[in-house]
Amino acid sequence: MTGPSRQRFLDAAFARPVDVPPVWLMRQAGRYLPEYREVRKRFAFLDLCANVDGAVEVSMQPFDRFGMDGVILFSDILIPLPPMGIEVKLDEGGPKLPDPVRTAERVLSLRSFDPSVETRFVMDIHRALKKAVAGRAATIGFCGAPWTLATYAIEGGSSKSFVNTKTMMHREPALFEQLLGKLADVCGHYLAAQIEAGADVVQIFDSWAGELSYEDYERFIRPANERLLAKLPKRGEVPRIFFASGSSHLIESFGRLPVDVVSVDWKLPLSEARRRIPMRALQGNVDPGILLGPVGGVTEAVRAAKLDAGPGGHIVNLGHGILPPTPPESVAAFVAAAREA
Amino acid sequence: MTGPSRQRFLDAAFARPVDVPPVWLMRQAGRYLPEYREVRKRFAFLDLCANVDGAVEVSMQPFDRFGMDGVILFSDILIPLPPMGIEVKLDEGGPKLPDPVRTAERVLSLRSFDPSVETRFVMDIHRALKKAVAGRAATIGFCGAPWTLATYAIEGGSSKSFVNTKTMMHREPALFEQLLGKLADVCGHYLAAQIEAGADVVQIFDSWAGELSYEDYERFIRPANERLLAKLPKRGEVPRIFFASGSSHLIESFGRLPVDVVSVDWKLPLSEARRRIPMRALQGNVDPGILLGPVGGVTEAVRAAKLDAGPGGHIVNLGHGILPPTPPESVAAFVAAAREA
Repeated sequence: MTGPSRQRFLDAAFARPVDVPPVWLMRQAGRYLPEYREVRKRFAFLDLCANVDGAVEVSMQPFDRFGMDGVILFSDILIPLPPMGIEVKLDEGGPKLPDPVRTAERVLSLRSFDPSVETRFVMDIHRALKKAVAGRAATIGFCGAPWTLATYAIEGGSSKSFVNTKTMMHREPALFEQLLGKLADVCGHYLAAQIEAGADVVQIFDSWAGELSYEDYERFIRPANERLLAKLPKRGEVPRIFFASGSSHLIESFGRLPVDVVSVDWKLPLSEARRRIPMRALQGNVDPGILLGPVGGVTEAVRAAKLDAGPGGHIVNLGHGILPPTPPESVAAFVAAAREA
Repeated sequence: MTGPSRQRFLDAAFARPVDVPPVWLMRQAGRYLPEYREVRKRFAFLDLCANVDGAVEVSMQPFDRFGMDGVILFSDILIPLPPMGIEVKLDEGGPKLPDPVRTAERVLSLRSFDPSVETRFVMDIHRALKKAVAGRAATIGFCGAPWTLATYAIEGGSSKSFVNTKTMMHREPALFEQLLGKLADVCGHYLAAQIEAGADVVQIFDSWAGELSYEDYERFIRPANERLLAKLPKRGEVPRIFFASGSSHLIESFGRLPVDVVSVDWKLPLSEARRRIPMRALQGNVDPGILLGPVGGVTEAVRAAKLDAGPGGHIVNLGHGILPPTPPESVAAFVAAAREA
């Protein structure tokens, strides 16, 4: 069986010919791995994100075991919020932001910052990770998209119905746009700094995009994403992946972004995504739930995704993050099936 | 302005001509109404579901204020689980099922029951509600769909990633189908009993349908829904509404069910739903978040939904339940806009 390849990842992202599609898994550095759980005994989650040796160690764990073509930085999308002036705590129930952003004063108070200074640890992790990977795979940097970060900032944590965010959006659209703009600038600079620090590929997580209607997404959110992307070095060297889930209805909007790859989930067949946005490479789209089942089902699902995507312009991945109770042998089967010619 | 009409609701559901589309709102009996919050001071949620006078009172509150064309029974989709042998508790964080259904023994132990006896209070509420409404609007009965109830039964509460449910689905598909079958039978009998007790319309809530791929939905879930629907009296008298959200990718599957109306959310334009399932009336699809904004936006959204649906075969509704912080004047504007000729 063929091994991992950085070039394969870059080629597929730019829809150039490849031997087999590259493969990685969202949240591949995570709780399903016993060696990750070992490290987590020594670090709280956010402390691990800030510890260069620890973060590199857990980023490398899945690569060392399974040899994916992409190695994503161990980090969190909320990392740029504290330097903006938004405190973030993590507990069992997920992130808690004790002072949510709901007023004009609070939006005005948010500051921009120099990511190479105030989130220097992230850039240090990128440099160390690059060294550890040593060209054997593509290193992946990432950030949250403005809308998704805005929901955390406004709700003060995760949400199901986004009541406060939608209230601001509908009652104070100008303030809401101002907040999105600040987040777009911060995230754009933050992601550009990751590229500067050596990220081979970047991914933007718009995890809650699917909550919005097409009209609202086009009106408020795509412009903010464009603003973020405008901060990155010009296209063609470092592929840009755009991730959203539960967003079949927004795919045409994503297809208009200056990105190279659109990541879709199991609710949107890859062949349909291909038809609707033919000019973008695709990533995905296996249901992480399938990896909870027998390995035969995993192999089948990866084969089906490859077949449905057709040759070229496809990065094999899940449609969402890997689930903590996933047996590691499912991940081995996932990577092996991706590598089949 | 024209008033509420039972006949208008039935006509629209069967895609017969109407003067204006009928209107109601999911969770219209709920926390956004001060008079509801008053009643809730006297009853815990599940106690209110079991109290005939209290349940009728809160079911009637939105009708007395706003005069919708449909009056839904105040109840909960989890009501049929305890008589099956699945304990349900409700706390601040949502439903908790202390003894989740994850083994063959547990599935085998689940019992069917006579809904007119063991959930007699629901039927009593229907009879009393019918009397209170007195033909001025359609009374609406409801139940959960087998998949959605299975997720609560297996997870032991609400879930984001449905880890245990998907594990059973992929590792023990026969057991999973057995559980779905039992739930389908129970819910079918339960909904038939509501029709017997006088419900003019019934709605089946498959709230978590959107989590599944088209293939998994077709394989496991649609057959269970068909089995539920087969327990109802034959089509043509009591319209059947099928509700799901975040399910644009499943709409063709819903369109194959023997139901009269498919309820869609703001992620699927009504015109697109119309094109994809032309033989079904539609319900929806305003984003409840819009009702958090100014009333002008509410009026606009309802007008846009009506225009997009086109004349006939449309019940004006939200795409999901009304949000607790909604100002009552938004609901007034919602109903008024639906009634505009």
